[in-house]
Amino acid sequence: MSEQNTPMREALKEAVKAIEAGEVPIGAVLVDSSTGTVVARAHNLTEGNCDPTAHAEILAIRMRCEQLSTPRLPDHDLYVTLEPCAMCAAAIAGARLRRVYFGAYDPKGGGVEHGPRIFNQPTTHHTPEIYGGIDEDAAAKLLQNFFKDRR
Amino acid sequence: MSEQNTPMREALKEAVKAIEAGEVPIGAVLVDSSTGTVVARAHNLTEGNCDPTAHAEILAIRMRCEQLSTPRLPDHDLYVTLEPCAMCAAAIAGARLRRVYFGAYDPKGGGVEHGPRIFNQPTTHHTPEIYGGIDEDAAAKLLQNFFKDRR
Repeated sequence: MSEQNTPMREALKEAVKAIEAGEVPIGAVLVDSSTGTVVARAHNLTEGNCDPTAHAEILAIRMRCEQLSTPRLPDHDLYVTLEPCAMCAAAIAGARLRRVYFGAYDPKGGGVEHGPRIFNQPTTHHTPEIYGGIDEDAAAKLLQNFFKDRR
Repeated sequence: MSEQNTPMREALKEAVKAIEAGEVPIGAVLVDSSTGTVVARAHNLTEGNCDPTAHAEILAIRMRCEQLSTPRLPDHDLYVTLEPCAMCAAAIAGARLRRVYFGAYDPKGGGVEHGPRIFNQPTTHHTPEIYGGIDEDAAAKLLQNFFKDRR
């Protein structure tokens, strides 16, 4: 495993915490690109928080914005275990993140490489660098096991 | 002014509050469709809250979800002064709102009738009924004056 992938392992740990909390297992971390340090960690909490916007990505962005008292995070990279949905992709554009690394591709709910392809829209406010398929198998396996157990 | 438009007037009042707070003037209210009552009011707070996701629509949805301890609001209608962006449109789908009434159309930032057209995507989780152009002139004038004053 390359050094670059370490934050994705942290994001996967967050996804495991989501399972323990009865949430869909998706985790995310934010890295301050100037220091290489993980500065925010979150997992999906839509059910527990009673909040349809409480996806891992949005919670991590809100956490870090609060820490820095700013609505924009240009020097930050997001690692998330699943391709972001349209809501999260648009929030990522709003936050002006530098890079997005995601795990599994999501043909049904993804908004980056599928569906509305938010960053390919001419009206997007910002387009981060995107790297998909990082530790893809681990992220996909967590999700598959979660949904298998619930059926 | 028809009875139906009254909540949009409430949303416009929220947009005026946004101006007073130095925020982009967009306001939203949620109506419980079973009673016809306005149950949540919010305006854009991205700068004041240091939160790129603090759009009027998302704040109103989060507020009502917290009140009812649920992440889904099927018996609710949203009135918002501007066409929702992609982030808010996807959040509206997530919250399963029944109807969306919006004021001004937004060719540059809208995600409903423009750009990614979130509810027209085959992968959207939910499509509310959409009514655009309600009290359009009032909403557009607020935005035009705001941006004129800042240039």
